[in-house]
Amino acid sequence: MNRVPGMSDLDKLFKPQSIAVVGASNNHDKVGYHLIYALRKYPGKLYPINPKEGEIQGRKAYPSLQDVGEPIDMVALCIPARACLGAIEDAAEVGVGVIFITGGGFAEADQQGQSLQDEIVDACRRNNIRLLGPNTAGFFNPRLGVMANFAPLVSFFPAGDIAVVSQSGSMSIILGTVLQTNRLGVSIGVGVGNSPDISVSEILEYLANHEETKAIAVYLEGVVDGRRLFDAITKTTKKKPVVVFTVGRADIGEFASSHTGALMGSFALKIAALKQAGAVVVSSSNDLIDAAHILSKVRLAPNKNPGVGMLSGQAGPALVMTDYLRGLSVHIPKLEKDAISDISKALPVKTFIQNPVDTARPLHHIFEKVFSTIIEDKNIDLILTYALHEPMCVEPVKLYQAMQRKHSKPMVFVTNGAPEDINPTLRDLESMDVPAFCSPERGALAVWALVEDARVRYRKERDLIPDKIVSISQTLSQSPDEAEAKKLLSKLDIAVPQHRVCQSHQEVFTAFSELQKPCVVKVLSSSISHKTEVGGVHLHIEDEAALKVALDQIDSIEVSRDTEYLLEEEADPGLEIIIGAKNDASFGPTVLLGMGGTTAEAMEDIAIRLAPLTVNDGLDMISELKVSTLFDNWRGGPQYDKQAVARALVTIGSFISLHPEIMEIDLNPVRVYESGCVVLDALVLLM
Amino acid sequence: MNRVPGMSDLDKLFKPQSIAVVGASNNHDKVGYHLIYALRKYPGKLYPINPKEGEIQGRKAYPSLQDVGEPIDMVALCIPARACLGAIEDAAEVGVGVIFITGGGFAEADQQGQSLQDEIVDACRRNNIRLLGPNTAGFFNPRLGVMANFAPLVSFFPAGDIAVVSQSGSMSIILGTVLQTNRLGVSIGVGVGNSPDISVSEILEYLANHEETKAIAVYLEGVVDGRRLFDAITKTTKKKPVVVFTVGRADIGEFASSHTGALMGSFALKIAALKQAGAVVVSSSNDLIDAAHILSKVRLAPNKNPGVGMLSGQAGPALVMTDYLRGLSVHIPKLEKDAISDISKALPVKTFIQNPVDTARPLHHIFEKVFSTIIEDKNIDLILTYALHEPMCVEPVKLYQAMQRKHSKPMVFVTNGAPEDINPTLRDLESMDVPAFCSPERGALAVWALVEDARVRYRKERDLIPDKIVSISQTLSQSPDEAEAKKLLSKLDIAVPQHRVCQSHQEVFTAFSELQKPCVVKVLSSSISHKTEVGGVHLHIEDEAALKVALDQIDSIEVSRDTEYLLEEEADPGLEIIIGAKNDASFGPTVLLGMGGTTAEAMEDIAIRLAPLTVNDGLDMISELKVSTLFDNWRGGPQYDKQAVARALVTIGSFISLHPEIMEIDLNPVRVYESGCVVLDALVLLM
Repeated sequence: MNRVPGMSDLDKLFKPQSIAVVGASNNHDKVGYHLIYALRKYPGKLYPINPKEGEIQGRKAYPSLQDVGEPIDMVALCIPARACLGAIEDAAEVGVGVIFITGGGFAEADQQGQSLQDEIVDACRRNNIRLLGPNTAGFFNPRLGVMANFAPLVSFFPAGDIAVVSQSGSMSIILGTVLQTNRLGVSIGVGVGNSPDISVSEILEYLANHEETKAIAVYLEGVVDGRRLFDAITKTTKKKPVVVFTVGRADIGEFASSHTGALMGSFALKIAALKQAGAVVVSSSNDLIDAAHILSKVRLAPNKNPGVGMLSGQAGPALVMTDYLRGLSVHIPKLEKDAISDISKALPVKTFIQNPVDTARPLHHIFEKVFSTIIEDKNIDLILTYALHEPMCVEPVKLYQAMQRKHSKPMVFVTNGAPEDINPTLRDLESMDVPAFCSPERGALAVWALVEDARVRYRKERDLIPDKIVSISQTLSQSPDEAEAKKLLSKLDIAVPQHRVCQSHQEVFTAFSELQKPCVVKVLSSSISHKTEVGGVHLHIEDEAALKVALDQIDSIEVSRDTEYLLEEEADPGLEIIIGAKNDASFGPTVLLGMGGTTAEAMEDIAIRLAPLTVNDGLDMISELKVSTLFDNWRGGPQYDKQAVARALVTIGSFISLHPEIMEIDLNPVRVYESGCVVLDALVLLM
Repeated sequence: MNRVPGMSDLDKLFKPQSIAVVGASNNHDKVGYHLIYALRKYPGKLYPINPKEGEIQGRKAYPSLQDVGEPIDMVALCIPARACLGAIEDAAEVGVGVIFITGGGFAEADQQGQSLQDEIVDACRRNNIRLLGPNTAGFFNPRLGVMANFAPLVSFFPAGDIAVVSQSGSMSIILGTVLQTNRLGVSIGVGVGNSPDISVSEILEYLANHEETKAIAVYLEGVVDGRRLFDAITKTTKKKPVVVFTVGRADIGEFASSHTGALMGSFALKIAALKQAGAVVVSSSNDLIDAAHILSKVRLAPNKNPGVGMLSGQAGPALVMTDYLRGLSVHIPKLEKDAISDISKALPVKTFIQNPVDTARPLHHIFEKVFSTIIEDKNIDLILTYALHEPMCVEPVKLYQAMQRKHSKPMVFVTNGAPEDINPTLRDLESMDVPAFCSPERGALAVWALVEDARVRYRKERDLIPDKIVSISQTLSQSPDEAEAKKLLSKLDIAVPQHRVCQSHQEVFTAFSELQKPCVVKVLSSSISHKTEVGGVHLHIEDEAALKVALDQIDSIEVSRDTEYLLEEEADPGLEIIIGAKNDASFGPTVLLGMGGTTAEAMEDIAIRLAPLTVNDGLDMISELKVSTLFDNWRGGPQYDKQAVARALVTIGSFISLHPEIMEIDLNPVRVYESGCVVLDALVLLM
């Protein structure tokens, strides 16, 4: 019955040629009123459905979907939760492609709501209908007048280049207002609500090919299907920049789950996964829009760390921006000697002319000359210019017109002044695709986002194929004990100490004669998870007498009959780290690196990646540790073997990826040396 | 010659009855042009001084200060650096009270500039003239029309309640524009430049009694006289809130010193000192103004951690604000059972009604009812309300008018919407002294600032008198060796292990028989600073044989003849910490607490305070450590004695305060137990 058979499901949602609103109303207090009001300028066919009204806001109302008698692409349900099932059957009958449900009372509310939601999702699937919501304010596509949202203020959002995808309906509206406040428009804005069907991930993939969208701003709460999101961001960022703002650093789980029904999960894992996927991760709604703003205008090629050139008419804001950017490891390289000498000649007074260059309020033509010298420097990939609003000194529009004719590297402008003075300038610059910001920190944040987008893509594109995956073929059927786990590690080419598994004291003494001293003897029992606490681990065993004492102590532990002894050579001292891996419910296989010892543990100094990963990812994880400096000749100490650690991370990542039956791997401690690393204890838990 | 003998020096600067501008000009390219232009509405007497012009911008020009023939309160020098000395002599002759110098080329430039600056300061002192600058854009007092600043845009700054004090002239102007953008005004704004005379500290103390100032926003770079600033903030925050934004987290020292001539110093120390003094420390210029904004409208009484009640018409922004505030340890207490039950009855649908309360877009009268219930809850000290701009749902002005009649606790409003829609609302609310913000994070930052101001004052007022100061009377004349340092500590009631100083092996063996085993024997020589590295420390000595070996090894170290042996009882294992103290060039006596071990050191996990401090300050320092959790039964371990650590911090702080001859004290490690703590090694270095 649908007129455009080639239309994708999300095209039917975002670019429908006809819309019906079930529960359309003339009563201001009803959502069905506001939806019809917001759609008042929609140029397609709009059918208000209400059996009790002849007319809704001046339009003919229809008693039912069946009464419309014309094809309907999309139906909005503004009716109570319990009435939705019937409406879906009606919609199926007339061949509707996509439905969106605004109301709550579903999975976010309680178990009964969850059941109702499940039934609705089933009904949609059966009838080949796609579902947005439930529990969302809706969406907006200003270019096509599809303002399908119950908040009256969305109908004034202008069309633009930035898409907004939000788990929360209200945050999608708020982000629309932030765009509007910054003289920017929205391409498509959408709140997904509980999202049992159409998800943030699917929308991202759709937007990757949405011509009118130049950058995507995402707001996330809990992530239910993290791996799917990771893949979607990975695909999307190849084509378009994705910026994400997400909550969850504090304990807000209970409130969040009552909001969109999603569990918060681990904040650190979520952030790590988003960055690894190629997203630029920011920490506020305003930063989200500033970052999306700059990335909708310019994008750098993937780059390990692009060089930022800085030019300022005032030293104060240049200092603030430098401090901000350096604090985020943005590269502000020294200029070439020739450039510095040229600039010195151009400037009338003694100012700072490294990088940033402080011109100290010069005349326009001098500013222009210095600008060209900086941007032409080979270490510079983009130029950030600050000038306080002082048209008598610098005329930004004239400056950038001239510079755009001469130079092609990205240019960013930052200023401060009274809104009525600077807004026209900002507007003119933006129409020239020069991203322009008001305030040093907002400009610096935007430049960081531009740089970060280039850096995350560089890391991602650097080497997509992980190293040769060493693996074992069989699926594990029960959690291995320490000796079995170490055998597994050996097969994966991860070093463990020389060791023997022994059933009797006699066997232990024989093994002791064969191994290098000192040795460690441990109880080996799958029923004991904390060996040290029960006296099951004995270190520094140099002779048989000490060994005997240790064995007797182990024998005194109350355990089941399957107890064995694990005798192994004691490893030399080295740098202690922890390697972990987990098949996370949301993000799938993940790898963790942490420093050993209680202090590091108390600091929660960890790096996380989704597996599989590459050796370079592993090296990045090491650098990400707050104490990564301990690897590199700390206080005259050794240079530890980071490659070996990175290879172990890669291997463990590949291994857990191939073994979904494993819940968790915990190698703790792993001792790192100048060459190689050795796993001293290993725990593998199955699902 | 001055007409108002009672006027303070800074009154003459900020409220002059007559101003002369030396170097006044008709040439747009000159600073002397812009200063006269900016002062065009100044209602007092304005005398342009220029021997070559008869008239400046329509005003009679005078060839020299002497030619004015009337009293002059304040003179602005817009002339080259080298001409300033002569102008000061002229000013002295006619009895000028205060001079301000805009130009650069002084201490910030080079050694020659430093000398010139010194001469100028001398000349001013000799002649009883106060000096603002050099190297500053100037200042502005819009209420009195004293716009003594060379940036044309300052002349449009409206008068208001917030003072701006900045080390950088351009940042003072930028902060003025941020106030303006937020519909706020400035009471006095000033950039101090190189500030060899009139300093940020002096201005703060002036503003503490400046009637038109309700809150003070400070921008700092390097702090030359930190102790003076600490005292000034301490005094000022008793009367008015002080918010500080400072740079220096990244390495920007070279640029900063070329800007206002101030060295950056330690960022951690600066931040710690500012907070300890009672300032609210923020990290951007926009946050600075938002924080000053809320504190100019409302201020809480000193409070350990005020309870914030939250009410929102939308769940998304409430979640964002909760995450933000909880992340900064702001207390969002559960509401009383009765309150929750009242609210449940008022709300039509299932929403989150703990705290925050999410009303899910209700009608105005319901919102009002819930507002009252929350604010009346005894756990709540202030209420933060969010409502998206939807006048059909909630009318904020009507709401707050009603609520202000009924309730006296502070109320904050946050919204989002198109500027043309929300600006009138924000303006109306602000005229009612309801601080109002646009965007969840800006609102949350402001509420945090309000809370933080109450928390820092609580900490400060809690106990001003440090514990009984145990001290020694004599000044140290040379750096003590370890044994002497430990003797000192014993006198201060800080525990050290039982120990003996011995000149010969024989003496060591005798001492060994008297002490509890195991023992530690160390080389004792003021010429060896790294004892362990040269084999000068031997642990775990249980018997005379081991002692002999250790002594022989110590004897083999190449040292000067004054070598002695230090034999001491080995301390039990415990939690290792570091206590340090320093007489800092800028901030004076300071105390540092860190966790022991390389990991903690690599993490730079430290807490700093200016001395003297109280036991509560010491306890705060412990909680401030990222790993403070290690003190409190970490993983079933002991509860370590925080009181003992805090007392040691207080004592060391008092001691270094009384001994300016000490450069540094380093107690590393200090071992903490369930009861008490013991210093294992001590280093005291004199200046």
